Amino acid sequence: MGGSLAAALAQRRANAQIACAHITGVARREATITEALERGIIDHGTCDLRTGVQDADLVILATPVRTIIRLTQELGPLLPAGCVLTDLGSTKQAVVQAMGRLPAHVQPLGGHPMCGREVAGLSAADPALFEGTNYILTPLPRTGAHALKAVREMVKAVGARPMLLSPARHDRLAAGVSHLPYLASVGLVACAEGLADSAAWDVAASGFQDMSRLSASDPSMVLDILLTNSAAIRGVLAGYRTELDNLDTLLANEDEAGFRAALAAAAQRRKSLFR
Amino acid sequence: MGGSLAAALAQRRANAQIACAHITGVARREATITEALERGIIDHGTCDLRTGVQDADLVILATPVRTIIRLTQELGPLLPAGCVLTDLGSTKQAVVQAMGRLPAHVQPLGGHPMCGREVAGLSAADPALFEGTNYILTPLPRTGAHALKAVREMVKAVGARPMLLSPARHDRLAAGVSHLPYLASVGLVACAEGLADSAAWDVAASGFQDMSRLSASDPSMVLDILLTNSAAIRGVLAGYRTELDNLDTLLANEDEAGFRAALAAAAQRRKSLFR
Repeated sequence: MGGSLAAALAQRRANAQIACAHITGVARREATITEALERGIIDHGTCDLRTGVQDADLVILATPVRTIIRLTQELGPLLPAGCVLTDLGSTKQAVVQAMGRLPAHVQPLGGHPMCGREVAGLSAADPALFEGTNYILTPLPRTGAHALKAVREMVKAVGARPMLLSPARHDRLAAGVSHLPYLASVGLVACAEGLADSAAWDVAASGFQDMSRLSASDPSMVLDILLTNSAAIRGVLAGYRTELDNLDTLLANEDEAGFRAALAAAAQRRKSLFR
Repeated sequence: MGGSLAAALAQRRANAQIACAHITGVARREATITEALERGIIDHGTCDLRTGVQDADLVILATPVRTIIRLTQELGPLLPAGCVLTDLGSTKQAVVQAMGRLPAHVQPLGGHPMCGREVAGLSAADPALFEGTNYILTPLPRTGAHALKAVREMVKAVGARPMLLSPARHDRLAAGVSHLPYLASVGLVACAEGLADSAAWDVAASGFQDMSRLSASDPSMVLDILLTNSAAIRGVLAGYRTELDNLDTLLANEDEAGFRAALAAAAQRRKSLFR
């Protein structure tokens, strides 16, 4: 997603839509830097964190959540005065907590663009990824107006809608509409596997294809999300099991009217959300 | 799906790929007949079941499951000798049980094409719907070789792969890879609703869009499926809750290695199934 954001910024800058003097990419591997330079989505690149951030006005962390937390600790002494630090992590309380420990000369602000992909890596970078999506911002009490304005402008520049939420509210909602659905998908694949009948995969049609897609996400990326939001996820997971128990009871009782009401409510809500 | 099948047969016949002298459509509403005639997907049409089937070699029931069962009872005295009766219903034990009570001069055979759509109705009819999909056939002990051959040829003619399963095995597998995923989707929408926070829908991204898609299915169509396969569905639902309990335990224990193994197994299976 870091690659997509750099690509989006480079494209908007080329169209003179934003003021952005330099885009510097920092990566672990030289090959990533070389590829990003060749694709024209960064101006400079380095594998050295200190060099990469030394003159930065805005630093955006685009790694798995626990690496964001580790980098936030490392970056404190490296960032220049007044530098804004934000991230693209999928959970926000743990990140913002780490950001709260940054030295006073840094301006931190949590961020989470609501545009996931199962495919990771620079080769999947797409400058249009953010267009029309919501981009959650979770300010800290210490976040100044200037920092918030700078990141909001960046968000709008790549075509997304900035939206303010508290870190706790973000994490509770993300648990419900993102992290729980992921676990539900993993559970469905495990269940189908548990049928222990290879014909199951022949009977699996588009419905199973949709419901299993999230389970193909990168386990390392997802583990960081799950382990930094476990309390909220366990809460919605308990609620989910209650919903499934209710559906089971409707089945057991052959309660056609009750069943129809439950199914119609879900269908109506889904249709109101997406076309 | 009946409209799609008629459209597929009409198209293949036009290309001289199959022998199919007449396609007669039977519907409840005159408007449906008129539309099907205008689109050229049927040769004749009627709202009268008796007239529609009186000279048929092959009758295909394309209605919700409980209507298939009712029609099977009504059709017994109406079908000509040697007529093959099949259906497109999503559950097979209840249908095949009803088919078993047909008079001896009828040749029954259960069927289920594995190509669902949330969108119903003739306007969504697509002659390419069956191409490359699996089409389950569930013969009865009384089903003769001629009937099986006729339906297999029809299945291949529309581009699908015929696959034989017992009704019980079909229903168990469909419960796991189709009916349970549907209930899982309904449960997820109910859970998101239960967050009682309208910002949840702003945070819902492509993952939630995928995982909620099935919940938008037509409740009447789905109710028939659920209520005619409740034993098998309740079985896999119990298994699903166990899988979710296991995932919850991994979360509670912060068991990173165990979690990674569970997530990687699901990701690997999913990737092996779909690209």
